[in-house]
Amino acid sequence: MSRKILITLEFDGTDFSGWQIQPGRRTVQSVLEEALRELLNDPNLRIMGSGRTDAGVHALGMCASFNTTLDIPLEGLVRGVNAKLPEDVQILQAREVPPAFCARRWSRGKRYRYRVWNHHRSSPLERDRSWYVFDPLDLDLMREGARYLLGRHDFSAFRASGCSSTHAVRDIYDIRIFREGSVVSIEVSGSAFLRHMVRNIVGALVPVGKKIHPPEWINEILQSGVRGKGGKTAPPQGLYLVELFYEFPPTEQYPTSL
Amino acid sequence: MSRKILITLEFDGTDFSGWQIQPGRRTVQSVLEEALRELLNDPNLRIMGSGRTDAGVHALGMCASFNTTLDIPLEGLVRGVNAKLPEDVQILQAREVPPAFCARRWSRGKRYRYRVWNHHRSSPLERDRSWYVFDPLDLDLMREGARYLLGRHDFSAFRASGCSSTHAVRDIYDIRIFREGSVVSIEVSGSAFLRHMVRNIVGALVPVGKKIHPPEWINEILQSGVRGKGGKTAPPQGLYLVELFYEFPPTEQYPTSL
Repeated sequence: MSRKILITLEFDGTDFSGWQIQPGRRTVQSVLEEALRELLNDPNLRIMGSGRTDAGVHALGMCASFNTTLDIPLEGLVRGVNAKLPEDVQILQAREVPPAFCARRWSRGKRYRYRVWNHHRSSPLERDRSWYVFDPLDLDLMREGARYLLGRHDFSAFRASGCSSTHAVRDIYDIRIFREGSVVSIEVSGSAFLRHMVRNIVGALVPVGKKIHPPEWINEILQSGVRGKGGKTAPPQGLYLVELFYEFPPTEQYPTSL
Repeated sequence: MSRKILITLEFDGTDFSGWQIQPGRRTVQSVLEEALRELLNDPNLRIMGSGRTDAGVHALGMCASFNTTLDIPLEGLVRGVNAKLPEDVQILQAREVPPAFCARRWSRGKRYRYRVWNHHRSSPLERDRSWYVFDPLDLDLMREGARYLLGRHDFSAFRASGCSSTHAVRDIYDIRIFREGSVVSIEVSGSAFLRHMVRNIVGALVPVGKKIHPPEWINEILQSGVRGKGGKTAPPQGLYLVELFYEFPPTEQYPTSL
């Protein structure tokens, strides 16, 4: 009898060519599939990620699902796979989900964090974990600019040229911007995201924080619908996929013995 | 006219074979000397570090000094060297010091921080930045054990076998142990440190935090004077050299035009 398992992952994206399997590249999906196939003794096992991540992007709570017929306890599965996985990707949690579950289609949204190292000197210990921005950022101006992005909009102006989505309308639920020491974090949660969307939002908010552009500039970019109007794309190493939002039907309907 | 310059450094120790120059190895000292020699056009320039650090150990405030006859402004020197340095080591600050200054002999002490990732799962993003300890640590017990180490003692029992110091008497000024989320930090400041001393102290405090040994065990180790009595040596990637303590004579006596 087949069970569907949803796993939550943390990974350091530095040495991965992103999530998705690509021939000849070290990707999170390929490393993970290999470990699961070996542990569960199923050479055909495939995992479905909640979405893609770019090379260099990190995750604190990436999600992925797969089917298995093996009746292994979930905690044993997590420990077994983690022992086979390299140190830069580990499973945090596993849970059984309804057979119809799909990590991508069932997602009601996700939350990203973008970390900026905002200091007059670059930091060796932060170099793969944040974007180094020399000029002091005015967070109030950035928050004012971010407000234009809240709600449902056509985010064509914040979409990478190679993006394959059929349309660019997305809902941004919340943008929080805060400072801890020299680190400025920009947390964006929304229904779904276009390719490079968070990095392009950050790339537009930073010049506002530097007072190169006024907060209204964010609205001008948004309304233009043209990618070329915005700032540059913030580099990948500052981006973290923090969590996925899933809504499950009442568990009574899906006993684990299904 | 020669000036003596004291620089403060941050480095990520992951890809370095420690501080000290060793043939065929990538060390912080060799990378730094190379950059300084090039910028200051002085092939004989030598830097004197405040001490050694082991492979994998990080620094937030390592200190080193050197002489130069070049009349380059200090801020220009920092920027110039940083542009030549790799991203995993950068100069934070430079100041002129008295000609007699020696980064090692003038040190009145230093402060280290040791980071433990204390969680039931290992963390990919913490793997090169902390020691993964599965069992929950009782910080009060660790603090009680640490108290035996405060003050002046013979630290032979916390000294690595290869340590070249003539005697093992050292002063510990302070040990602070605190938790931030899943990270337990152990901060140790003292007059000077023997080889692996902080890592051996942490390696003894952790079993106390796990309740494998009572706090009094720390005193037993200390009094034994025998390294074999202690716990294991905590791994290098959790250790950070935070700062050096220097006492300078009144600056009036050492005008920068000397």
